[in-house]
Amino acid sequence: MKVAVLGYGTVGSGVVEVLESHCEVIKKRTGGDVLEVSRILDLRDFPGDSHAAIFTKNFNDILKDDEIKVVAETMGGVNPAYEFTEKLLAAGKSVVTSNKELVAQKGLQLLNTAKEHNTNYLFEASVGGGIPIIRPMAQCLAGNNIEGIAGILNGTTNFILTKMIEENMSFSDALALAQKNGYAEKDPTADIEGHDACRKVCILASLAFGKHVYPSQVQTQGIKDITLQDVAYAASANGVIKLLGQIKYIDENSIAAFVSPAVVFAGSQLASVRDVFNAILVRGDAVGDVCFYGRGAGKLPTASAVVADMVDCAKHIDRRKIFGWGAGDSDYVVDYKQVLPMQFYVRAKMSQSEVLALFSDVKFLSRKGQPSDETAFITDKMTENELMQKLSGKVVYSTIKVAEY
Amino acid sequence: MKVAVLGYGTVGSGVVEVLESHCEVIKKRTGGDVLEVSRILDLRDFPGDSHAAIFTKNFNDILKDDEIKVVAETMGGVNPAYEFTEKLLAAGKSVVTSNKELVAQKGLQLLNTAKEHNTNYLFEASVGGGIPIIRPMAQCLAGNNIEGIAGILNGTTNFILTKMIEENMSFSDALALAQKNGYAEKDPTADIEGHDACRKVCILASLAFGKHVYPSQVQTQGIKDITLQDVAYAASANGVIKLLGQIKYIDENSIAAFVSPAVVFAGSQLASVRDVFNAILVRGDAVGDVCFYGRGAGKLPTASAVVADMVDCAKHIDRRKIFGWGAGDSDYVVDYKQVLPMQFYVRAKMSQSEVLALFSDVKFLSRKGQPSDETAFITDKMTENELMQKLSGKVVYSTIKVAEY
Repeated sequence: MKVAVLGYGTVGSGVVEVLESHCEVIKKRTGGDVLEVSRILDLRDFPGDSHAAIFTKNFNDILKDDEIKVVAETMGGVNPAYEFTEKLLAAGKSVVTSNKELVAQKGLQLLNTAKEHNTNYLFEASVGGGIPIIRPMAQCLAGNNIEGIAGILNGTTNFILTKMIEENMSFSDALALAQKNGYAEKDPTADIEGHDACRKVCILASLAFGKHVYPSQVQTQGIKDITLQDVAYAASANGVIKLLGQIKYIDENSIAAFVSPAVVFAGSQLASVRDVFNAILVRGDAVGDVCFYGRGAGKLPTASAVVADMVDCAKHIDRRKIFGWGAGDSDYVVDYKQVLPMQFYVRAKMSQSEVLALFSDVKFLSRKGQPSDETAFITDKMTENELMQKLSGKVVYSTIKVAEY
Repeated sequence: MKVAVLGYGTVGSGVVEVLESHCEVIKKRTGGDVLEVSRILDLRDFPGDSHAAIFTKNFNDILKDDEIKVVAETMGGVNPAYEFTEKLLAAGKSVVTSNKELVAQKGLQLLNTAKEHNTNYLFEASVGGGIPIIRPMAQCLAGNNIEGIAGILNGTTNFILTKMIEENMSFSDALALAQKNGYAEKDPTADIEGHDACRKVCILASLAFGKHVYPSQVQTQGIKDITLQDVAYAASANGVIKLLGQIKYIDENSIAAFVSPAVVFAGSQLASVRDVFNAILVRGDAVGDVCFYGRGAGKLPTASAVVADMVDCAKHIDRRKIFGWGAGDSDYVVDYKQVLPMQFYVRAKMSQSEVLALFSDVKFLSRKGQPSDETAFITDKMTENELMQKLSGKVVYSTIKVAEY
């Protein structure tokens, strides 16, 4: 079967490499079919690349080629990936993607287009890189009502936090190291501000509960305000600070979905996820907690997930996978600060007696070099709005959610 | 769609419960179809059970009912489950199972029968209880050559080892507690001798490499010789002793597959798996290590995996999932003791200088109350046969493999 690849960057070139180097295992999975890359679209030139004969700068070379049945879109960004994907699906081709931005923004429309034209749009690689998560969520958890999801969804921020936790490195030094290692972009905004994790939350939430969630609906807070003081206080309670994407079922018509730093205590499967690794924990009412762990990014891990989707499309060329979600109401994602009770970590210029006057069930934390007028503690459960009300008028250095996973 | 359940024990009654309580989520996944339990086969009576009207003791009531399209086999054991499953598949019905013993012994034949009759035989629940592992292995890793698999596959033994590690409980006390908690059978042989883990290794190996592996081919060692002394020495090197099932790709025509205790060091995703939880780590050449974690047993977790397979069958009623494996040669599973180099933990009546005379790259361990004539150490890499040769003539208390994961 002929296939094509849109975008010959890190992931796209990885897809071509995996398709070529894994012929045998692919044949086993398709039942004999080889996936032959017959076209690669990229506006750039790649002098000396062995695929010179199949490069094209003209999208129509792929769109109009009836022999090409499956296309991997690894361009990234919404435009022109969206337009290209719409046209390919409308032409009856299957499309698979690693493009989380596109799925988070336009997944609903693209799945509808795929449905109309009886073809498939798959996106396993858009969350968790090479970790199988989309398909297990969609299929294997068909016997569960999903109660909540919590994930370490961004490898760059997890690398930075790991360096802060394990090597007492400052945020800015850890970021510089991440950039030096190629884990963070020159402009690291999308990672450290939580936008990348936010897109993945949208995809997971849409899939888990069947209604599209857009990035604008997900309150998102990054890690750049996390200090080594906070890291030290958390450590005194056997906790680590992680950037978590969280989704919580509330009722048939509403969920909570947000991205923020969170204190995770030892014993949680999420606590031991270090460096650039990702993990996604899914809580089902029958199965309990299941957790999926692995490399959330990188050329070959992500490419292997794209290729798995291409193999799946090749096997399902004559039928559609039931895999869609509908539109949600504008108030489908609630303001979690108002409705979701949770515990918080607080660091403030307060005395212990001031804290005890405000909070009933408090666990105090300590750190080396703690100033006499600084107090850090874990609260009992309350909404974030209630917390803010209690703390109003106080000098608060930081508040961080405590994870329930 | 009408479905039936064979065996109304823990898992079978859980399947009925999940099917009834999860109508809505099942409808979403099937695209509108409900799975209605129309027959339950069990030779026992269940006075007062609300399903009185649909119980039967006659297998033919299910076999001959053309409206029943999908059957869950949750009887356990090879007979009569094998005969029943053969007949159901031959009649064109899909069968799903949690019966690892049957899949390990007869998976090849049953998959062939399913193929002949263009129907499906699925067994997600046979490994890892509710953890999605079979399907991610089969589908999502289509872009990888699998290099190795290591799993904590048995919850009972992991519970016992956790109590020994964390509470310094003796093996026999921990076993008694597991029995009291309902985690271990009155006759705990299948768990503590590793037979249960062995069956799961067979299924994972067959699936990963496409050739059936039988329990008799998998060298299996349980945990009953593990002592608190070994636990303490391992702890001094930040290690924990786990019962691991391991599979290693050697070449196109051979693999290693075995079950044994193994020292796992902190930092491994397998080290933090406590109590009755299971985890399966898969190492692919493109994706690196991915790990799947969750409850490996229990009524509702296992039932939810059975139900997910039933939903999958309902969606694929008109087509077969490509999912088979062939026969392996008799020498397909090699004698790992002869060919697979690994590190070992050794505890022996030897002096450090005697150890150093035999081994070149040794890490000595220590424990509280260590007798002056007892030495424990980690060796460099060698085959188990080489190790045994070196140690011949010595008083050796224990040797335990060191995991590479």
